[in-house]
Amino acid sequence: MTNFTHFDEQGASRMVDVGDKPITARTARASGRVRLRAETLARIRDRGMAKGDVLEVARLAAIMAAKRTSELIPLCHPLPLDSIEVSFDFPDAESVTIEATVRVTARTGVEMEALVAVSAAALTIYDMCKSIDRQMTIDSIRLEEKSGGRSGHFHRQPGA
Amino acid sequence: MTNFTHFDEQGASRMVDVGDKPITARTARASGRVRLRAETLARIRDRGMAKGDVLEVARLAAIMAAKRTSELIPLCHPLPLDSIEVSFDFPDAESVTIEATVRVTARTGVEMEALVAVSAAALTIYDMCKSIDRQMTIDSIRLEEKSGGRSGHFHRQPGA
Amino acid sequence: MTNFTHFDEQGASRMVDVGDKPITARTARASGRVRLRAETLARIRDRGMAKGDVLEVARLAAIMAAKRTSELIPLCHPLPLDSIEVSFDFPDAESVTIEATVRVTARTGVEMEALVAVSAAALTIYDMCKSIDRQMTIDSIRLEEKSGGRSGHFHRQPGA
Amino acid sequence: MTNFTHFDEQGASRMVDVGDKPITARTARASGRVRLRAETLARIRDRGMAKGDVLEVARLAAIMAAKRTSELIPLCHPLPLDSIEVSFDFPDAESVTIEATVRVTARTGVEMEALVAVSAAALTIYDMCKSIDRQMTIDSIRLEEKSGGRSGHFHRQPGA
Amino acid sequence: MTNFTHFDEQGASRMVDVGDKPITARTARASGRVRLRAETLARIRDRGMAKGDVLEVARLAAIMAAKRTSELIPLCHPLPLDSIEVSFDFPDAESVTIEATVRVTARTGVEMEALVAVSAAALTIYDMCKSIDRQMTIDSIRLEEKSGGRSGHFHRQPGA
Amino acid sequence: MTNFTHFDEQGASRMVDVGDKPITARTARASGRVRLRAETLARIRDRGMAKGDVLEVARLAAIMAAKRTSELIPLCHPLPLDSIEVSFDFPDAESVTIEATVRVTARTGVEMEALVAVSAAALTIYDMCKSIDRQMTIDSIRLEEKSGGRSGHFHRQPGA
Repeated sequence: MTNFTHFDEQGASRMVDVGDKPITARTARASGRVRLRAETLARIRDRGMAKGDVLEVARLAAIMAAKRTSELIPLCHPLPLDSIEVSFDFPDAESVTIEATVRVTARTGVEMEALVAVSAAALTIYDMCKSIDRQMTIDSIRLEEKSGGRSGHFHRQPGA
Repeated sequence: MTNFTHFDEQGASRMVDVGDKPITARTARASGRVRLRAETLARIRDRGMAKGDVLEVARLAAIMAAKRTSELIPLCHPLPLDSIEVSFDFPDAESVTIEATVRVTARTGVEMEALVAVSAAALTIYDMCKSIDRQMTIDSIRLEEKSGGRSGHFHRQPGA
Repeated sequence: MTNFTHFDEQGASRMVDVGDKPITARTARASGRVRLRAETLARIRDRGMAKGDVLEVARLAAIMAAKRTSELIPLCHPLPLDSIEVSFDFPDAESVTIEATVRVTARTGVEMEALVAVSAAALTIYDMCKSIDRQMTIDSIRLEEKSGGRSGHFHRQPGA
Repeated sequence: MTNFTHFDEQGASRMVDVGDKPITARTARASGRVRLRAETLARIRDRGMAKGDVLEVARLAAIMAAKRTSELIPLCHPLPLDSIEVSFDFPDAESVTIEATVRVTARTGVEMEALVAVSAAALTIYDMCKSIDRQMTIDSIRLEEKSGGRSGHFHRQPGA
Repeated sequence: MTNFTHFDEQGASRMVDVGDKPITARTARASGRVRLRAETLARIRDRGMAKGDVLEVARLAAIMAAKRTSELIPLCHPLPLDSIEVSFDFPDAESVTIEATVRVTARTGVEMEALVAVSAAALTIYDMCKSIDRQMTIDSIRLEEKSGGRSGHFHRQPGA
Repeated sequence: MTNFTHFDEQGASRMVDVGDKPITARTARASGRVRLRAETLARIRDRGMAKGDVLEVARLAAIMAAKRTSELIPLCHPLPLDSIEVSFDFPDAESVTIEATVRVTARTGVEMEALVAVSAAALTIYDMCKSIDRQMTIDSIRLEEKSGGRSGHFHRQPGA
């Protein structure tokens, strides 16, 4: 079994050396879900009723947080990201799903950036709606796909 | 039904005015879970095998992220926090649960700070373990309890 | 003539001591204007045509920047802001005006926070529109009103 | 007419993908002006009288803010800047003009970095002088020149 | 012997709860020294020769870093500082000494803010001078005095 | 004698232009020392007695601070670091020594990043131990080695 790469032989944390890795185009896609009451979701989707656009605030929070991933996750590398996209969907009457895709041309990948974007979007939806619904839950934050690195193309196994 | 307080009558986002609210002692407690393979969890729990302390890195990430909540969540108030505590538990062979408790003496509460702490801890566990387990999922991030504000004591309903 | 308070007797910069000032409710209101082509403005105002809401992005940038004023302006005090509101108006076919109102209960005022909010909104409008209009100009950023501090109520003189 | 590039087909904000653009040397130059009372300007220019160097504080604020442009402007790319220079001039007895030049070798340009530098310098001059002159106005913040990108050399039209 | 307050009974890091401590006026004063070549110091002191003011840059770096202490030191509380002052002295031909005094009215003290200010000033002097002197050393960073907290007045013992 | 590169001909601060320098692999190694009471050091080294790992907290603070060097040191370039490693040693009963090694592939070097890492580690050790030992001193922060840049390999002279 391989080791935790973020620790050295003595168990000390480190920011892993990526200096010898090639610069390649890399993409990561992550997703997550906020579960909330049907009335809350109806309001989010009807901007007239909501008197504002909850999801656009969440999207901007996601983009801005992704750019600061290396400040939030202690051992992440700072990276000059190429693009960040965030989309929302409504698979049922009580769920918003979030998907974030991040691209970079660098020596290491951006899966943490994609996961941070999803988390920030979910937390912002929570913040925007908490005055009317405090039982919301954030679920199923996970990596969906990852490409461009040495470890090859990763695609989440269905049902995993 | 009450409105989204983060929008004004015209639907513009705003940081809500809390200037007229009293300064009170407030607490929020949030929780979440990382689901991972049994082998991964066994390694996290055995610091000798892991050659390092994944959970302590996650805990520090949580504390540091909670302090920066108002930078991450667009409409959150900046608050001089009184305390942040983060704990972990292992309810089964494939789960780490995270609980964060944040306290403040202020005009508004700290539920977003507690939720940000839990999210940052979960994301950091993901980052530390992703070289050996890419199918991890972050689940059930939610507010457990909240007290000290105008809206009274909130305690999550079991099974909700 | 009074001195620059941000320098001491030897000319050294300092963050002025406000420890002896009373905690009072303070408000500052600032404004500014972006001058742009009539076609650009028409697009901003018609969200359908723009396919997105330029002003909402600018508003969130303003709110988030105001919270970080003490990081941007070297000698500003960090303050736990009570509220931030940002509004837009269109006095003619080639202008967007921005107005920001910030409130705090503290030992010092928030005029810099209001001015930073206006500047960030203006810069974000520029960024959002620069692909179609590079001749935009940001103008007339100034304090409109200020109250709650030792120096009494300030109201900008018309025509000044 | 071209579209707002910061929105996708559905009107969602995004950080535009620059991954396919070539890495080139890019420069942007922006300018702005602070209008203030003649006595205030006289003091700024006479460091002995001022007992400190207002413009050097403003210059450092400009340089430091430019480095954080991607944190302030929601859809800006984070960029490893090559250089930042900021200069001041005094075209008349009641004006300080600010000029900032930023360089980078990257897939996208630095006009926002130059504009942020100018804005931060202007705001800092305001902050340093506000104890003696509250009627100051920040004016004419605009892009002067831009080179190195796909859109060719931009030079502001005189009188525009 | 008392315990490390930043760890709980299980050894977990925490941001200590200060919610029950009284709000009092607190001051901390720290100092440090940069040892450098006599020629380097001569240049720093002669702003004409240096063509710029190294110490003023260092002073601003110190003030700005002190405001961000809670972002740098993992378990520090975020505090709304009342004042920051930084001064320099030259006890011999090869030393610059730095002294920083920070004040706050809060539930916990500011010794880390004073120490961070001194460290940032020293590092900035190093950065400004490293092109002409790479053998510089930063020494004797320490707390000199602290007052206003529960533990009473601390004054460093001479020769300690 | 060469000039301070951070000032231009007029003495204005600037972020030096590195656009014409080649991209090379660069390393910097810095060190420092915390002097503390023998009892304090004994506790740090015995994690059971300390009920927590002071040095691991310090290590993470060092890594996270190094990534933010360009925010702390006014004229430093933002750099996408390749790796950061931090180690501790105990040369005598009253000293912890800290060593940080930073690597980058860039147009300019990382000596400030290595020095910032060491400083942050030292300050965090101070913070963690200050409840039991307030006479600690931070000493001998200095560059040990630097390679990969135009100025060739630098290795600190013994005894300097």
